Amino acid sequence: MIDAVTLTRELIRRPSVTPADAGAMDVVEQTLAGLGFTCRRMKFGDIENLYARYGSARPNLCFAGHTDVVPVGDAAAWSQGAFDAEVVDGVLVGRGAVDMKSAIAAFAAAAGRAIESGAVKGSLSFLITGDEEGVATHGTKKVVEALQAEGEVIDHCIVGEPTSAESFGDMVKVGRRGSINAEIVVEGVQGHVAYPHRAANPVPVLVRLLARLQDRMLDEGYPEFQPSNLEVTMIDVPNTATNVIPGVARARLNIRFNPSHTGASLASWMEEEARAVAEGFKGSVTVKPAISGEAFLTEPGPFTEVVSGAVADVSGQPPELSTSGGTSDARFIRALCPVVELGLVGKTMHQVDERAPVDEILKLQTVYERLIARYFETFSAA
Amino acid sequence: MIDAVTLTRELIRRPSVTPADAGAMDVVEQTLAGLGFTCRRMKFGDIENLYARYGSARPNLCFAGHTDVVPVGDAAAWSQGAFDAEVVDGVLVGRGAVDMKSAIAAFAAAAGRAIESGAVKGSLSFLITGDEEGVATHGTKKVVEALQAEGEVIDHCIVGEPTSAESFGDMVKVGRRGSINAEIVVEGVQGHVAYPHRAANPVPVLVRLLARLQDRMLDEGYPEFQPSNLEVTMIDVPNTATNVIPGVARARLNIRFNPSHTGASLASWMEEEARAVAEGFKGSVTVKPAISGEAFLTEPGPFTEVVSGAVADVSGQPPELSTSGGTSDARFIRALCPVVELGLVGKTMHQVDERAPVDEILKLQTVYERLIARYFETFSAA
Repeated sequence: MIDAVTLTRELIRRPSVTPADAGAMDVVEQTLAGLGFTCRRMKFGDIENLYARYGSARPNLCFAGHTDVVPVGDAAAWSQGAFDAEVVDGVLVGRGAVDMKSAIAAFAAAAGRAIESGAVKGSLSFLITGDEEGVATHGTKKVVEALQAEGEVIDHCIVGEPTSAESFGDMVKVGRRGSINAEIVVEGVQGHVAYPHRAANPVPVLVRLLARLQDRMLDEGYPEFQPSNLEVTMIDVPNTATNVIPGVARARLNIRFNPSHTGASLASWMEEEARAVAEGFKGSVTVKPAISGEAFLTEPGPFTEVVSGAVADVSGQPPELSTSGGTSDARFIRALCPVVELGLVGKTMHQVDERAPVDEILKLQTVYERLIARYFETFSAA
Repeated sequence: MIDAVTLTRELIRRPSVTPADAGAMDVVEQTLAGLGFTCRRMKFGDIENLYARYGSARPNLCFAGHTDVVPVGDAAAWSQGAFDAEVVDGVLVGRGAVDMKSAIAAFAAAAGRAIESGAVKGSLSFLITGDEEGVATHGTKKVVEALQAEGEVIDHCIVGEPTSAESFGDMVKVGRRGSINAEIVVEGVQGHVAYPHRAANPVPVLVRLLARLQDRMLDEGYPEFQPSNLEVTMIDVPNTATNVIPGVARARLNIRFNPSHTGASLASWMEEEARAVAEGFKGSVTVKPAISGEAFLTEPGPFTEVVSGAVADVSGQPPELSTSGGTSDARFIRALCPVVELGLVGKTMHQVDERAPVDEILKLQTVYERLIARYFETFSAA
């Protein structure tokens, strides 16, 4: 029988800071193989990925997650080594304790019990990547494309990201906003401030463009979603001399958007505004958009009810169905099937002394057990 | 008899790149002492300054200039060493050939001839600094303050900056715009782009402030002056991550202004606008203004006529009386007396292969001779 806490500790002790694997994927693979899963390693670039399946019948309920973790940060500020994974006063401390080695361990432990009890009336699968915290190009995205290409069917997916907000089980994620980055470059003509007619300062054009972009109320929200939001994240107009008109001005911005928009609609809006401010300007204005993910929503229905019911079985009340927060690999998996994200309280993720109470890891395992049971009760044809 | 070209070459061979003196001031002092000037070295900080006077009667016509030069720049791009000061095809090449060792030499040569001919019916003086191209805090400003404190009277001043625009003698400067720099710092609260409510992005506030500042038409000009002009010279919102809301945003700007404004009026306008955009902002907005010089004008009258007449005596036509261009030490001297700036063609100043035709250096000497003669004819009580 798999012990979720022991397995979490074993995983944390593999310092798999993206893109390093440090043996973490082997631990997952051996664990699942021991439960009777058919394991397939899928390596893209330097990144370890794993797709493991138990059973061949539908429905196929998949658990998705990642073994990689973010860097330690200020190592000296940790109360113990970031990869020591010691339990102190009932709390497991270590990088990945919350995000999200514990969830992998909890689902593996739950799967083992479900298999043993005969609850799996279909298939269980794991889609685990080593590249979620990094650029995420050789991770879930590639695995999903490969599975699609070969016709592998996944009916529903649970992503183990830490979704609880304040207390265990208070929130699951049923969608995510989209995200688009844009780089703006305004090229003018450098010169002396006393002779502005010989120069073309790119700053007024950049300021006008940013003012237009930031002053638009993108929307007032969308059912289940927060309003879309634009943040200018960087401006760079390098110049050390106080008497020189600069030659180039750069900015970067990020928009988190709900389904009122698509990446493409926002990209063309920004390009239009750039053309508008460039009118009459001697230089050039360029906008380079890069879409990180589109907005998506798993509509409330039988699947979200399975998840909510499983949480309520353990915590006593159903979770809030939310679409707040950053992006996750769910943006890739939604191409395959409905996705809900369900995990621990995220407060300490990415921080010094990332930590999870042992009893919450065990509760998460129980929620996952209940979820698997309810899932096959609801969706199995048998 | 002083030869202006020989003296210019001797001065260029002292590589007095600000704040270095390299013996340049000694050359000036020895030359003037040889003409019977009473020389006073005035050292402020590391900077060499010289005030030299011939005669004790009024009126006192002062020549002001600087021995320091800007750096060589790309030494390999020069056609000869920047301090070789060789004459090639009738053109003297070297750092300071135009800005403005040649003018010092030309005025010294003119002074020698004027003294010898008995044209000096009053006093001639030289106010020479070694800190015009640098921060200019220990140069003319300090000398002027010291002279004011001891009651030294200067009636009129000629500054030897290169003022000709296209051809010799086509322009003199009878005033200068003022100049004010401002540093703007907007401090917000850093955070994750997906959680903007927990952060306070300083960029929208900075963009709004810059938009307000740049969109104001400061004025439409002023008699003898161009319109005032504001240029944002730097913006810095450092941030390498695309998903982080930055914590601080900085900008610098410069305003060149005509007598419609004062440094103080512009400073308080910027501070007011900063307060306006800060309203409702969780962070802080700071504007730090630094006035480099106020706008000033030497009104057309007998003194400008002396200068124009002297130029016309040599070039055949009076120069344009202009207030265009950057600041100069004239901004400090105007506290003492009316100032006109008159020198060579400025085109190659601060550039590689800075150069002056030998015949223009000699023409400048003749203009200065005519100027001294006309000056005492006009202003001497005798």
